[in-house]
Amino acid sequence: MQDIVVYDCTLRDGSQGEGIVFSAEDRLLIAQKLDEMGFDYIEGGFPGAAKKDADFFARARELDLKHAKLAAFTSTRRPKQAPGRSPGLKAAIESGAPVATVFGKSSVLHVEKVLGTTRSENLRMIEDSCRFLSGHELETVYDAEHFFDGFKLDPEYTLKTLEAAVNGGAEVLVLCDTNGGSLPWEIGEIVDRVAEQFDLPLGIHTHNDAGLAVAGSLAAVEHGCSHVQGTMNGYGERCGNANLCTIVANLELKMDRRTIGKRKLTKLRDLSRYVSEMANLPHPKNLPYVGESAFAHKGGMHIDGVRKDPSTFEHVPPERVGNARRLLISELAGRSSMLDRLSRYRKELKKDSPEVKQLIKELVDLENRGYQYEGAEASFDLLIRKAFGLRQELFHRCGFRIMSERREDGSMLSEATIKVRLGDREVHTAAEGMGPVSAIDNALRKALMEFHPEIENISLVDYKVRVIESTGGTGSDVRVLIESTDGQERWGTVGVSHNIIEASYIALLDAIEYGLLLSKQTEAHKRQARK
Amino acid sequence: MQDIVVYDCTLRDGSQGEGIVFSAEDRLLIAQKLDEMGFDYIEGGFPGAAKKDADFFARARELDLKHAKLAAFTSTRRPKQAPGRSPGLKAAIESGAPVATVFGKSSVLHVEKVLGTTRSENLRMIEDSCRFLSGHELETVYDAEHFFDGFKLDPEYTLKTLEAAVNGGAEVLVLCDTNGGSLPWEIGEIVDRVAEQFDLPLGIHTHNDAGLAVAGSLAAVEHGCSHVQGTMNGYGERCGNANLCTIVANLELKMDRRTIGKRKLTKLRDLSRYVSEMANLPHPKNLPYVGESAFAHKGGMHIDGVRKDPSTFEHVPPERVGNARRLLISELAGRSSMLDRLSRYRKELKKDSPEVKQLIKELVDLENRGYQYEGAEASFDLLIRKAFGLRQELFHRCGFRIMSERREDGSMLSEATIKVRLGDREVHTAAEGMGPVSAIDNALRKALMEFHPEIENISLVDYKVRVIESTGGTGSDVRVLIESTDGQERWGTVGVSHNIIEASYIALLDAIEYGLLLSKQTEAHKRQARK
Repeated sequence: MQDIVVYDCTLRDGSQGEGIVFSAEDRLLIAQKLDEMGFDYIEGGFPGAAKKDADFFARARELDLKHAKLAAFTSTRRPKQAPGRSPGLKAAIESGAPVATVFGKSSVLHVEKVLGTTRSENLRMIEDSCRFLSGHELETVYDAEHFFDGFKLDPEYTLKTLEAAVNGGAEVLVLCDTNGGSLPWEIGEIVDRVAEQFDLPLGIHTHNDAGLAVAGSLAAVEHGCSHVQGTMNGYGERCGNANLCTIVANLELKMDRRTIGKRKLTKLRDLSRYVSEMANLPHPKNLPYVGESAFAHKGGMHIDGVRKDPSTFEHVPPERVGNARRLLISELAGRSSMLDRLSRYRKELKKDSPEVKQLIKELVDLENRGYQYEGAEASFDLLIRKAFGLRQELFHRCGFRIMSERREDGSMLSEATIKVRLGDREVHTAAEGMGPVSAIDNALRKALMEFHPEIENISLVDYKVRVIESTGGTGSDVRVLIESTDGQERWGTVGVSHNIIEASYIALLDAIEYGLLLSKQTEAHKRQARK
Repeated sequence: MQDIVVYDCTLRDGSQGEGIVFSAEDRLLIAQKLDEMGFDYIEGGFPGAAKKDADFFARARELDLKHAKLAAFTSTRRPKQAPGRSPGLKAAIESGAPVATVFGKSSVLHVEKVLGTTRSENLRMIEDSCRFLSGHELETVYDAEHFFDGFKLDPEYTLKTLEAAVNGGAEVLVLCDTNGGSLPWEIGEIVDRVAEQFDLPLGIHTHNDAGLAVAGSLAAVEHGCSHVQGTMNGYGERCGNANLCTIVANLELKMDRRTIGKRKLTKLRDLSRYVSEMANLPHPKNLPYVGESAFAHKGGMHIDGVRKDPSTFEHVPPERVGNARRLLISELAGRSSMLDRLSRYRKELKKDSPEVKQLIKELVDLENRGYQYEGAEASFDLLIRKAFGLRQELFHRCGFRIMSERREDGSMLSEATIKVRLGDREVHTAAEGMGPVSAIDNALRKALMEFHPEIENISLVDYKVRVIESTGGTGSDVRVLIESTDGQERWGTVGVSHNIIEASYIALLDAIEYGLLLSKQTEAHKRQARK
């Protein structure tokens, strides 16, 4: 079992991804988290290229890193420039980071077309730059940009660029598949060639343009690399960098290499979600190991198998990476997963008890009408509560009217009026909205606020519409999925009707009812705590 | 250069993905598109397990497939069951599909724990089932479920399951990494072992639980598999199946294997987006080859490099897969593909002619507002006609009002009133509908019928709604996609607004205008023919 060094590029290369912007604060928080997770290196930015990267390093001195080293990224000096006059190299030194990662050109295509210099000057640029950094007592990591593409064009020259870095004092040689186009076995063969000639630790840095970044990194480790670079969730330019979450999990669980260790690995899912929150991006459900669907089973035969033995349809136990198994409720899944859920309410229930039979009957009927409870677990919960007589009534009677108007000048207006009764109280009110659904949403909240003031904390996060049987045009049934929050929890609800207003209304009511239930539970907890 | 058979599982395995539901209509449209792309096999569903899968095969008889063969999926017979009494096997035969894909258990773990039968009975189940299908003249594909996991537990037994399939008449042996946990080099080694013993064509079917599905499939091909299974965009249970888009592009462009051929490959991006529209799912920007960001350059040095020579930062030219380069400093880069479309209307147009510039400006503006023309080519066509002054006016002014009411007894009513003027004529009328959208659809048709009686032949086939910016709840923008027909042609139109009624209205108007245009062209043809 060999130790593999983990080098995170999220803050620098990851932020090249389309739509990814980290504030200075975000970067500090992420660096702290990566350190807690036991990552070895954190690349903080390119201080010679962007002022906000230099600022990050200034503020990073406040950080109390227990394990990780901060690395400053830089290019080599320019052609015919003295290293001491290179803004990039100087900024790396001034950053105060103990590590400098300097990238140089490995490929003759880039030397000639992009740099516009000679092959020998490029070698001197690499050697001088590494010597300048290591001479300033910085641990020097050499990133060989376009290494694999360069090797395919001119292997001899590409190996000479590595020699130049070694002569300059580089301590690690990182082989980069910058354009992400190399096949894993090409990477493996080329790493073999490099390992024959160099005794230094070798690193790997890949991109996902061919969907092979993780595979390329693992192949490189299999062939001798002991340092792996990547980003959280695979953020990065174009199709992204190699996803470090996937790589770390594969190294630990499939290849028996130690990276952050098995204990910290159980925080992997949390870390992945944390960084996606910082990036303000949704967390893709299908991310390997850490995604919400990674251990979600939908097919009936799969659910049946997992209940008999989880290893039948799970490549690793989800707990190893801090994830959890989910049995999805769907038409395809058979009914066996339902008992699991019901047992949360009543432990003693059996598959053939009358409540369960009745509930299953109702569920089948609802599913035939187009209901679907994936992403609408709150509606499912309310369904169970209703079957067990645990449901709260929001009101006795409700009628509403929505008017959407397009004036001849093209402007649109939507208004809803609503009349709600609970006991002997009646509320009759009205509200406008951007469209008919937001008008009824606003009116319904306004009316129910009279009976349940806690509604104020509940708000809508997402609203999805899907036509179910699409053969009848606008006369088809629609399914509305709504996601709501009270600032803490999030929950999903569903409504189906041939009328989009009614479908939305059904899902909205469930959303409010479930939200009130949550707020009552929280109140009860607080009272309990005060006692 | 070897031919590799492409077998698509989107309609069956892909629909196991969380949140993926294809209607019967969607499935027919997708099958048609996959056929046009030159895919060899299309797995339509599991007719013995779900009624709507059986319905799909019944309706699929209408399809006029030029190249692809439809495959019906099924399990083997059960332990101690006669093949003729297996609902799965019978349904596969009754489906009318020329190909049956039968899956059996390769792993002793599954034989014992999940099936609860003996190893020898499992072998008989596989052999009998293949024989039953091949005996009914079906081309029989054998899917060896959990093949790689099974091989690691007991290689000898696992190879025997393949022998059983061969003895039963299977024509292809597909090795499945069902749990997605195998490393690419493990797959390569095991394929080598299988290829030593079997002369039949071998196939590969992988899942992405370790982020290695594409790499595993390519490794299998490199070691001798000639049949590749996967799904569009990698849809599928848990972390998804192997992404067939990525695999096909890698095989064609990196490994010099022929699949759909280089010409059809240039439609890959369109196909990928088309299927994501059908699935009503966003198209991830970072998808290899086909994503919107796949050739988007953000870093200054990268943009500089790409300007000097695109190969400096692009692993393949984006045009090869129908994608386009984007330099993120200017959203306008890469619109050159539009000239292709415009030349249908005016051959002599150049990139810098004023109409083209104006049109590009308008298009960029519309796209920023959330318009998207995949699946809405009729709206795009009308946009071009408008730019060239070729557009017909349906009316001068139009105002409408829609009322949706929920009475206290729970019944719903939707009614629309509309006032339309063309020249000095005015029509003021009203109609009801199942919901507000069908009410305005009915009223609009009724009103316009007065001016354009041909409208009678136009009807709606499909109606889809998507929330575009999903952070604002019911206040978000929605995009409505409508598909219409006149009994002969089908066409798609699009509308965007924060108000679902307005978005629907915009798409409906385009649908009617385009339909009238078609009927005028048909009339003109008829007159021409009579002369």
